[in-house]
Amino acid sequence: MSKTEGFFITFEGPEGAGKSSQVAMLTEYLSGLGRECVLTREPGGTEVAEVIRQVVKSYSGTEAVHPETELLLMEAARAQHMREKILPALKEGKIVICDRFADSTSAYQGGARNMPQQVIDYLNDYASAGRKPDLTILLDLPPEVGFRRISSRKSEGFDRFENEKLEFHRKVREAFRQIASREPERICMIDGTLDKTIIAEKIRKVVDVALF
Amino acid sequence: MSKTEGFFITFEGPEGAGKSSQVAMLTEYLSGLGRECVLTREPGGTEVAEVIRQVVKSYSGTEAVHPETELLLMEAARAQHMREKILPALKEGKIVICDRFADSTSAYQGGARNMPQQVIDYLNDYASAGRKPDLTILLDLPPEVGFRRISSRKSEGFDRFENEKLEFHRKVREAFRQIASREPERICMIDGTLDKTIIAEKIRKVVDVALF
Repeated sequence: MSKTEGFFITFEGPEGAGKSSQVAMLTEYLSGLGRECVLTREPGGTEVAEVIRQVVKSYSGTEAVHPETELLLMEAARAQHMREKILPALKEGKIVICDRFADSTSAYQGGARNMPQQVIDYLNDYASAGRKPDLTILLDLPPEVGFRRISSRKSEGFDRFENEKLEFHRKVREAFRQIASREPERICMIDGTLDKTIIAEKIRKVVDVALF
Repeated sequence: MSKTEGFFITFEGPEGAGKSSQVAMLTEYLSGLGRECVLTREPGGTEVAEVIRQVVKSYSGTEAVHPETELLLMEAARAQHMREKILPALKEGKIVICDRFADSTSAYQGGARNMPQQVIDYLNDYASAGRKPDLTILLDLPPEVGFRRISSRKSEGFDRFENEKLEFHRKVREAFRQIASREPERICMIDGTLDKTIIAEKIRKVVDVALF
């Protein structure tokens, strides 16, 4: 991989897996090594995509958001994020670190909401302009543990996804593990119940191997 | 066609073609005959879909909305509209009359924004759950004429589509005409420069033939 092409790292995992902390720690580590990093998240990451995020995560009217609508909104936000932010940064040789990406769509809208994987693959590919992550860190965690964590740190209300029942989040986890087993060369699964600093050390090693 | 299955009529055409007036007149005519009509529009038609409409038609921030994003937002609104309103109404045997539908996506995002027709066909089919209109009225009009009309009736600002240059709207018209030539059994093209009452009479005749 030429450094001028940039490097695209995504973090995946269920709610409360510790993605945000690890994303921040990895960014700090790589920046300390003099690498230019772009830290971003999905759904969202750009002004337009964040507007779409609001609709898909926090719509609170009386109407049910149909799963097909949710899927297409996620992909609309991704199409914008990819073309407006991720691809330009990669072209400039930067390291893009993204909190959630296409695998989350496979796990949430596919595994948990039962949208066909064939449709999701088509939409993921279209929205991301065919650019897959170079490396994906999957923080694996039993949903009960993740839920205990987000309940203890949150004072405000939960969003549409956090509000789903435990069974939904079990399906999300199972789907993530299946995705990881299908693409072991891209996805590195790490036990999210480990101590935060141990996880960070493991991630640094995996990234070192891939990058340097 | 069994009456218990409902009947799905869409109106298409460039800006200022007179769709809204004709939709209203046809609804009045059919209601007068005792038929239950559901009058709706795209993008929009339900609470969630109208929220998406706002984003796609009226986003006014500094960021450019990429054509792929626009396409996916249109399809997200359609997925919601179809499952929340159109399909249930058709199931109840009603006549659904919709101001713009999937052909507008082919004309605007395909013909004018150059998104591949193959992708649009896939997304239109997915978003509309494979249900095509039973009849489509295409009001054909030179873009110059349509523009003169909307300029004279509008006091507030134009939306993202109305703001496009004449060349964009020429492509939209050409795309609509091509779609009509590909599906003459579904699409009835009517000269939108004719007198409003003459157009309404033509539409009534076409609908009579299809419905009774």
